[in-house]
Amino acid sequence: MQVHDLPALAGLRVDGARLWKSLMDLAQIGATAKGGVCRLALTELDREARDRFVEWAKETGCTVRVDAIGNIFARRAGRRDDLPPVTTGSHIDTQPTGGKFDGNYGVLAGLEVLRTLADANVQTDAPLEVAVWTNEEGSRFVPVMMGSGVFAGAFTLDHALAQCDREGVSVRDALCAIGYDGAALAPHAVGAYFEAHIEQGPVLEANDKTIGVVTGALGQRWYDLTIHGMEAHAGPTPMELRRDALLVAADLIRAVNRIALDHAPHGRGTVGCADVHPNSRNVIPGRVALTVDLRAADDASLRAMDAALRAACANAPLPVDVKEVVYFAPQPFDAALVESVREGAGALGLSSMDAVSGAGHDAVYLARVAPAAMIFVPCKDGISHNEIEDARADHLEAGCNVLLHAMLRAAGSTQTESA
Amino acid sequence: MQVHDLPALAGLRVDGARLWKSLMDLAQIGATAKGGVCRLALTELDREARDRFVEWAKETGCTVRVDAIGNIFARRAGRRDDLPPVTTGSHIDTQPTGGKFDGNYGVLAGLEVLRTLADANVQTDAPLEVAVWTNEEGSRFVPVMMGSGVFAGAFTLDHALAQCDREGVSVRDALCAIGYDGAALAPHAVGAYFEAHIEQGPVLEANDKTIGVVTGALGQRWYDLTIHGMEAHAGPTPMELRRDALLVAADLIRAVNRIALDHAPHGRGTVGCADVHPNSRNVIPGRVALTVDLRAADDASLRAMDAALRAACANAPLPVDVKEVVYFAPQPFDAALVESVREGAGALGLSSMDAVSGAGHDAVYLARVAPAAMIFVPCKDGISHNEIEDARADHLEAGCNVLLHAMLRAAGSTQTESA
Repeated sequence: MQVHDLPALAGLRVDGARLWKSLMDLAQIGATAKGGVCRLALTELDREARDRFVEWAKETGCTVRVDAIGNIFARRAGRRDDLPPVTTGSHIDTQPTGGKFDGNYGVLAGLEVLRTLADANVQTDAPLEVAVWTNEEGSRFVPVMMGSGVFAGAFTLDHALAQCDREGVSVRDALCAIGYDGAALAPHAVGAYFEAHIEQGPVLEANDKTIGVVTGALGQRWYDLTIHGMEAHAGPTPMELRRDALLVAADLIRAVNRIALDHAPHGRGTVGCADVHPNSRNVIPGRVALTVDLRAADDASLRAMDAALRAACANAPLPVDVKEVVYFAPQPFDAALVESVREGAGALGLSSMDAVSGAGHDAVYLARVAPAAMIFVPCKDGISHNEIEDARADHLEAGCNVLLHAMLRAAGSTQTESA
Repeated sequence: MQVHDLPALAGLRVDGARLWKSLMDLAQIGATAKGGVCRLALTELDREARDRFVEWAKETGCTVRVDAIGNIFARRAGRRDDLPPVTTGSHIDTQPTGGKFDGNYGVLAGLEVLRTLADANVQTDAPLEVAVWTNEEGSRFVPVMMGSGVFAGAFTLDHALAQCDREGVSVRDALCAIGYDGAALAPHAVGAYFEAHIEQGPVLEANDKTIGVVTGALGQRWYDLTIHGMEAHAGPTPMELRRDALLVAADLIRAVNRIALDHAPHGRGTVGCADVHPNSRNVIPGRVALTVDLRAADDASLRAMDAALRAACANAPLPVDVKEVVYFAPQPFDAALVESVREGAGALGLSSMDAVSGAGHDAVYLARVAPAAMIFVPCKDGISHNEIEDARADHLEAGCNVLLHAMLRAAGSTQTESA
């Protein structure tokens, strides 16, 4: 038996070509004509992709368990198998017009780590796990990030199982139908959680960096605004006698932008929806509904942004209803794990920069119950949730190597089994 | 035989109660539960209302003709019947959720003038006419102001007859079905045209005036704008890397307002429609379509407003397509007829103010082929095209008296027949 410590494993690398082939193979399941993937959660296609993952995991020597919300845990035993596992993962459900990389990369990067360790006969102290979290996208069932949300106690299993899609099919029935209604396992302790993911934004590409060291996830506050004006004929109504709801909406759209800029660099403010009533060419709009999405890296900023939005609405020249509909607290990732990602990228000679996750990810829920961190790699033009989503094989390989070494470090001193 | 000249007729007044009763009677045809009227052009209800008008006109001693687009002309002979008639009128089709007064008031005020003259045995030099113009509203068939548009040569009879409603029924067939497909009369000369109408705006009420002396109709330029941005996820995309089409739209909405204010008092600028793509809460809008409606009293202003709009679009930080879809030239009314309305209101002791017509009216087309003017009376809260449209009986009576005396003056010296 030959024993290696961490420095001796510093030269270990994943097989980028194998990772890429696995990504392309999995992307065949639900492949769209435009080169994307449509593989909604808990469909037959999802079952097929899950089966493929389970088959690959078992070939790598893993044991596989499925919990009651359909999360899959592929486990590679550790030398001290009583330790909580070092876990990585993501999701393999997609948007209706999704791409090949969102989620799938995190799962298959985890699989590639296990394959690499198996090939090199490396054994870790703590066991390793690759998790496939159920229904991250939320395209068919809400809430989004359902599997990781149940795991982290963000909402109950029963609540999740009772949700129905637009055809009235419940999560419970959909899980049964595809045979992924697992045992009612209590969520197990996780020693550390890493998630590799395409950035889904343009920052790494704009800065020509390979690795995003994700320091945390932005908090989010979402609102529904309704502006109440007075419909009137656009011809006979002079400007000074109007109560134009769309004009006030325009000022609030600008205000949301300004509020975000006031909280640079991580403040974000988006009006995604505007619905105008009656939406007629020659009628002054009488009512406009806007959605507002505010994000910030810390709760003090998010509170200040909330106050600024409410002030803008209160000071508007027409009545504005403000209803907050979603709140996610900012979620900093574990400082030690973040540092290990940062150092790992440096040791591998990869360019990197600190980043924040603006979107929700399973890691954000996992961070509630375990030390967690994420590794971003660039995606082309920052585009995701789109069939043209694309990423470079060398970037995906680089992120997977960072994941490998971060997991090795978190899993404790390692040794090779007898070759 | 007793002869009166105009001064002797100065004391002549319409019967306000009779006018009100006729308005209420006609409003029963197509009455809605909310107190409005739904009487779309060339429907069975329109036929019923037309029949009622024809019956009333004949009872008043008129001859009635119908032209090929269904316009009805009720004619009261003049002493010199070879003179071109002094005509008044409007329309009796309504919006789907229309009121009792829009259009109907102009027609029934004209009828009340003829009834008053008949009761007082007044004969005019020139013949008098009350016209009912087909399909002013455009709710079922476009173009709007169809009957007066054909009469004035704004478009051809054949073009109008060929238009179809959403069920594919043509104007030609609809006219036949209700028996108002009249003879292919050549449009006849009109000596003067007056139209009494509710204001459909808030200006008279805001200024506490009974009579609006309408000096002309605003010109109109309508546009479709399309702003091309880039859809992106609202979370991962920092503010400085966004191409947010709705943010640019907001600035253009504000710009349209500013352009109108720069051309006070008659400049108008309205964005009535905004359609956002993909209109999703957490996606930065990638494309926004806006409609723009610019109006002004003179063509120089309208040209300047057009240039300012195009400059705002050209200077926007994202590409903006600008397509002009409608152009109506400003239409000043006949100075002498406007003055006779102004003087008539004064002689009747009525408060008045100059006004412009911001909306389209049959009179705007008539002004292309005859001296024309309009008389506005207030409507409650400026509301029209709405079942709650309302107007005061005393205002309607006052406007009708102004119409009476304006028509008497335009029709030349008058005499009473033998009593």
